[in-house]
Amino acid sequence: MDPALQLIQEVEQTLVAKAKLLVFERNDFILQAGAVEHNFYWIESGAIRAFYLTELEEHTIRLGYKGSLITSLTSFLNGTPSEYYLQAIRKTHLRPIPKTTFQNFIQEKPVRLQQYNRLLETIVVQQLEREIDLLTYSPVERLQRVLTRSPHLFQEIPAKYIASYLRMSPETLSRIQKS
Amino acid sequence: MDPALQLIQEVEQTLVAKAKLLVFERNDFILQAGAVEHNFYWIESGAIRAFYLTELEEHTIRLGYKGSLITSLTSFLNGTPSEYYLQAIRKTHLRPIPKTTFQNFIQEKPVRLQQYNRLLETIVVQQLEREIDLLTYSPVERLQRVLTRSPHLFQEIPAKYIASYLRMSPETLSRIQKS
Repeated sequence: MDPALQLIQEVEQTLVAKAKLLVFERNDFILQAGAVEHNFYWIESGAIRAFYLTELEEHTIRLGYKGSLITSLTSFLNGTPSEYYLQAIRKTHLRPIPKTTFQNFIQEKPVRLQQYNRLLETIVVQQLEREIDLLTYSPVERLQRVLTRSPHLFQEIPAKYIASYLRMSPETLSRIQKS
Repeated sequence: MDPALQLIQEVEQTLVAKAKLLVFERNDFILQAGAVEHNFYWIESGAIRAFYLTELEEHTIRLGYKGSLITSLTSFLNGTPSEYYLQAIRKTHLRPIPKTTFQNFIQEKPVRLQQYNRLLETIVVQQLEREIDLLTYSPVERLQRVLTRSPHLFQEIPAKYIASYLRMSPETLSRIQKS
């Protein structure tokens, strides 16, 4: 098994199993821009989006759903104020893992440091994929790239947020899906 | 000192000092898309760009100059064919560090694994900055964001490549700089 997946599985079985349960209603904020994020979150049910707000519009930059982890990554890693909002797309159950708890967990066994390295490498590669997404002009190709990575996206996330993540209008997304 | 910087300094003092010297002329390719990258490179002099080629145009996605490291990161980390080209912008001297050499170096001391973790976290944060760059509509703001991170960029890299990196025409970049 991939060392990164192994680490995530162990996080689930130990840290997530002991974490408290937070319940958010639709449109509730888990984090506001300007606040520091001290946790990452295991999504037990529901869906979350991370978005970045400019004068012109909201940019959805990450989507998370059942069985995955989400946080405001720069803020979590550097302890700086978040540039993003984290918001519940619908009723959502989260298990927060505090940064200090995760750091202690990583330090406990040398193998975990290696696994965490591999996890970070995986995140780096995913972010480069996202950079290419953003540079891809064709809306059809952008959709295809994302569906290759997340085939079940439309079952988990409303189309308007997927459109925002893909930098296209909901109308364009709908037209592409039908064709 | 930041653990990531400490690691880079030690890489310079040990691995780079023993590495062979490669010389590339202007426009020479260090790596072609489709090939696997087995090295990262210390730039001893000159400048490099990483670009991504679509039917429509070249997208400059990274710029590297004297005293920094560059590679095709996904290919280097995963051993997959590179989606990018690495090309010398002018005559360039590189010191290649093979992946296996770097991996042995990291495994030699436990503290290096921790430092490498911090380096990967730094790369993750830099990539998120780049993602926000790409989502920033205003060309003036895009330029300001990049100059905050790399104040000496224009001394190292010709304007046409900076324009490509910033997703604007050379004319727009020139107009912004004058105003």
